[in-house]
Amino acid sequence: MSENWAGIITIGNEILSGDTVDGNSAWLGKELMGLGIKVRKKTTVRDDVQDIGEAVRSFSEDFSPVIVSGGLGPTHDDVTLEGISRGLDRDLVKNEKAYEWIKSDYRSLYEDGVISSVDMSDERVKMSYLPEGSEPLRNGVGTAPGVRIDDTFVLPGLPDEMKVMFRSEVVPRVKEMGLVDELFVKSFAVDVDDESKFAPYLKELKSDSDVEIHSSPHGIGEGIKIVLTGSEKEVKRLEKKLRLKDIYIKEISR
Amino acid sequence: MSENWAGIITIGNEILSGDTVDGNSAWLGKELMGLGIKVRKKTTVRDDVQDIGEAVRSFSEDFSPVIVSGGLGPTHDDVTLEGISRGLDRDLVKNEKAYEWIKSDYRSLYEDGVISSVDMSDERVKMSYLPEGSEPLRNGVGTAPGVRIDDTFVLPGLPDEMKVMFRSEVVPRVKEMGLVDELFVKSFAVDVDDESKFAPYLKELKSDSDVEIHSSPHGIGEGIKIVLTGSEKEVKRLEKKLRLKDIYIKEISR
Repeated sequence: MSENWAGIITIGNEILSGDTVDGNSAWLGKELMGLGIKVRKKTTVRDDVQDIGEAVRSFSEDFSPVIVSGGLGPTHDDVTLEGISRGLDRDLVKNEKAYEWIKSDYRSLYEDGVISSVDMSDERVKMSYLPEGSEPLRNGVGTAPGVRIDDTFVLPGLPDEMKVMFRSEVVPRVKEMGLVDELFVKSFAVDVDDESKFAPYLKELKSDSDVEIHSSPHGIGEGIKIVLTGSEKEVKRLEKKLRLKDIYIKEISR
Repeated sequence: MSENWAGIITIGNEILSGDTVDGNSAWLGKELMGLGIKVRKKTTVRDDVQDIGEAVRSFSEDFSPVIVSGGLGPTHDDVTLEGISRGLDRDLVKNEKAYEWIKSDYRSLYEDGVISSVDMSDERVKMSYLPEGSEPLRNGVGTAPGVRIDDTFVLPGLPDEMKVMFRSEVVPRVKEMGLVDELFVKSFAVDVDDESKFAPYLKELKSDSDVEIHSSPHGIGEGIKIVLTGSEKEVKRLEKKLRLKDIYIKEISR
């Protein structure tokens, strides 16, 4: 079983107010599971330097990798890097590579007629100031570079940018770091009239294995879903045991 | 402006693995904002006694109200109340009111032919053990009672049950506690070609008011959205100021 626990931090007032449903962290959870990395905790904080700093410091102590998403843009409330700089006690310093990327991205957008000025305004330059010792990560969709600080990866909040960068920039690095593990996952629909009736079976299975068994009800009378996560051999052994019980189960895709 | 900050904790491995998108916390964020209560932080933890206990203890120290959702059911991985009992250092004791509700709910389900047994099995009885000093909250949809411990409210994870209980059980109590405040929120679509160009305007507005100004980009070339939150008078003053700028803004619903 995986010994690495990942943590996810998403940043933005719009997530906390419910204006935006946090699909990013769900997507990241699935991608990480696909790599065999389970997520232990996720937290959403406001666009607040202090709150961001505390969350990133605490996650970077407890989890590896840590994926942070949101608040990398040019406006006054994009304070993620300032928060991380405070939280990890690293100065913000101009990164020349990031600066050249930003400059060339705005030049292309200008040449394509998408924006009306090519100037490197303070707001655009701001995006090239990264916590000391960071590696900038190329944003192939938008203009704000991502950042890697040890095993913490900071990505933009716009889903299109975040997803592309996770796959092109984060995954290869996480693999290189040896964090990727083998995890086998199987899901089943179970036809029981209520969860409380199925609970003793689960308890029995649980007592006999280190496979993680998770059940979620669909509502009374509508059956439940269970998910087994562990080594392939163990998951298949438990499946066989389950199928010998006097209940109807059917394998389903996640 | 509100001095109360709410916190939201959602519990469940299925949220961290991305199998379930956490729509509950987005819904709760909107409802709380509607009451004039802003959410400072939200966290999702696994179905793990230790993790749940730590999250609830820390949130109950920092925020008021705290809304917890998930893990109240009868199965082995429904450990929310055990986690809270550990985290807040309160024994789990049988609550007679909760016990009677559960018994009568299962009897009704049995009489309606939805379930096949009316017995109060260990798993069903377990749902009536609440942290000492709790007030049970009636679940009008499913069978698991909710729990109030001071200003911490614990609700089921199934959205239908959670939503009904938030409105029928939590809102009246939060109002009674005087946590409800007046907040005025206005959202605008701004037609600028990129966020970095609009940033100086935002900075100027920000320097002059305690209204919270949040901007989110839709992507380069697609304009941005800004949300003003504060007293009605101040929000309207800033709106007027914004409209005098040389940009196109349009009010939108959240």
